[in-house]
Amino acid sequence: MKKIISPTFLIDKKKCLQNIKNMALKARRHNLKLSPHFKTHQSAEIGSWFRDFGINSIAVSSVEMANYFAKNGWDDITIAFTVNILETDKINKLAGNISLNLLVESAEVTEFLSNHLTYVTGIFIKIDTGYHRTGLSSENTAEIDKILAIIKSNPKLTFKGFLVHAGHTYFAKDKNEILEIQKKTIVQLSRLKEKYINNWHDLIISYGDTPSCSLSENFQGINEIRPGNFVFYDVMQYHIGSCTTDEIGVAMACPVIAKHPERNEIVIYGGAIHFSKEFITSDNGYKIFGYIVKIENNNWSAPVPDAYLSSVSQEHGIIKMPEKYFYDFNVGDITGILPVHSCLTANLMKNNSIII
Amino acid sequence: MKKIISPTFLIDKKKCLQNIKNMALKARRHNLKLSPHFKTHQSAEIGSWFRDFGINSIAVSSVEMANYFAKNGWDDITIAFTVNILETDKINKLAGNISLNLLVESAEVTEFLSNHLTYVTGIFIKIDTGYHRTGLSSENTAEIDKILAIIKSNPKLTFKGFLVHAGHTYFAKDKNEILEIQKKTIVQLSRLKEKYINNWHDLIISYGDTPSCSLSENFQGINEIRPGNFVFYDVMQYHIGSCTTDEIGVAMACPVIAKHPERNEIVIYGGAIHFSKEFITSDNGYKIFGYIVKIENNNWSAPVPDAYLSSVSQEHGIIKMPEKYFYDFNVGDITGILPVHSCLTANLMKNNSIII
Repeated sequence: MKKIISPTFLIDKKKCLQNIKNMALKARRHNLKLSPHFKTHQSAEIGSWFRDFGINSIAVSSVEMANYFAKNGWDDITIAFTVNILETDKINKLAGNISLNLLVESAEVTEFLSNHLTYVTGIFIKIDTGYHRTGLSSENTAEIDKILAIIKSNPKLTFKGFLVHAGHTYFAKDKNEILEIQKKTIVQLSRLKEKYINNWHDLIISYGDTPSCSLSENFQGINEIRPGNFVFYDVMQYHIGSCTTDEIGVAMACPVIAKHPERNEIVIYGGAIHFSKEFITSDNGYKIFGYIVKIENNNWSAPVPDAYLSSVSQEHGIIKMPEKYFYDFNVGDITGILPVHSCLTANLMKNNSIII
Repeated sequence: MKKIISPTFLIDKKKCLQNIKNMALKARRHNLKLSPHFKTHQSAEIGSWFRDFGINSIAVSSVEMANYFAKNGWDDITIAFTVNILETDKINKLAGNISLNLLVESAEVTEFLSNHLTYVTGIFIKIDTGYHRTGLSSENTAEIDKILAIIKSNPKLTFKGFLVHAGHTYFAKDKNEILEIQKKTIVQLSRLKEKYINNWHDLIISYGDTPSCSLSENFQGINEIRPGNFVFYDVMQYHIGSCTTDEIGVAMACPVIAKHPERNEIVIYGGAIHFSKEFITSDNGYKIFGYIVKIENNNWSAPVPDAYLSSVSQEHGIIKMPEKYFYDFNVGDITGILPVHSCLTANLMKNNSIII
């Protein structure tokens, strides 16, 4: 491994491949199409790892990302982000080259697309099953009917189905709460499917979120899953029960620059512009920006018990380190940190990562 | 202005120049050297704006940033970040080309530098006056004396003085608390200066943080100030009283992609990978990720009363918008958002900014 002298994002290929394999096997078991969300890694190389598991279609969260992966050989892409009509020209260029699916949540935008799309494009309707970020309530069949009428009237628009991201699982406390959320989501989606399947025989129910897809064995009525984070996992996923710490496939490697024994703190070069400012709150009420691991021989250890990244400013991070491990980390050493939210950390570290 | 179709960072040059001018005038009034911190903008072009105000020396927070500004004509740079000894080779290359100052907070690291630096380099000792991130307590004169003894024994090391970043002003509730923190800091620095000035006639007291430098008129004993954020300011600075909203020199421009009248929410394309996840907490306990402004004719309005960016996920932002303004923002419009922490937003938006 190249000598690390500044904050570096380590990607453990073996762990990532195992994570992909586990999800691909689960999808096969449940007869689901796996259309992984590539916003997590945004990397052509990591994307290529999915090919061996029979993955041919992906989800992304921006036109820019869709363009990037289209240039890297992906030709079946869903932009799983409510369409931004200001990017219609870019969308048209892309839809001329690949099989592209867009997301709508209003008749207004669907009408706009109907008037401005130049190529045949797939349309998913975004359904909100409780996350309340975007999407139509599954009970808002009036608006759904309006959207479907517009789609029906224009052969350039192909109705793909209903798409859900049950992002409220990220706020769950444990596995049971995640499964409860997923169960409720499935009930809503089943009703929708029942109502519309007769007129739209090929409609797909596309379901997102790493927590449910990792934990659930109930995918009744679902045709496609779009988890993204699972390739890396992270401390947040561990915290809510989606993975073990051993499954976390990425770690930050950061230089130790100072130590403060009087308060059991270790200062690292590595801050908000490397990790992001995402944190979880411990049961005792303190903020955790990452777990601490030891980097040794192209590998990292299990988390050091009770050690954590307790704060980040622009370039600095502060580690709270129990006294018994305090002297295992010295100025000039590289310490490892499992990130709280690997998607945001990967986004920040795009140009400073090493695959091990 | 170029047509905006995706999240874009707008920089109002007129406001920024006024902010620079105000700080330069204050520095002159108090006979202080202004050595602005360029981590806020990380931009050669914005850096060049400071030249007209007689600025010749700057602070940065990484070797990488020092290299960038050195390549862009800055030849007097303080890396205001405790030295990372793993980057000694890079430091040596840089110190051969420009006048470079480093920061230490231990005899151990000073000894390392003494053994490995190849060019004459300035050394500041980092003092912690209560922020408790990095630095030595001003009372820890035993360690300070050890550091000074090492510096004295090696002509390559030039003692520059004591450097403080009173970052705890960022957690202050109001102007009075900021001034109280600064007053206590000045007392500690004065004691240090008194103790060491006889042996080190040229020692500099270098003082940071935008809140104090914006609000205080008491710089007794201080020789140099290194505020950074003031060129842009942001919602956090407004919140603690360092600036007016009118002085905020940057705004994000983001497309409106959906509206949810049933909960007075507007969804924008613009999330954590554009804004960062920095937030302030309102008096009522809710999180604010930005204030909302209207973008009109190369300009933006005062904040829309009671409107705010209430959450951000990777690419989405949710705006809470009072009903009376709800219909002023439509799908396909561009809305403006004053960021909570302009340094982090500027870092994320480096490649998507427009100077207006």
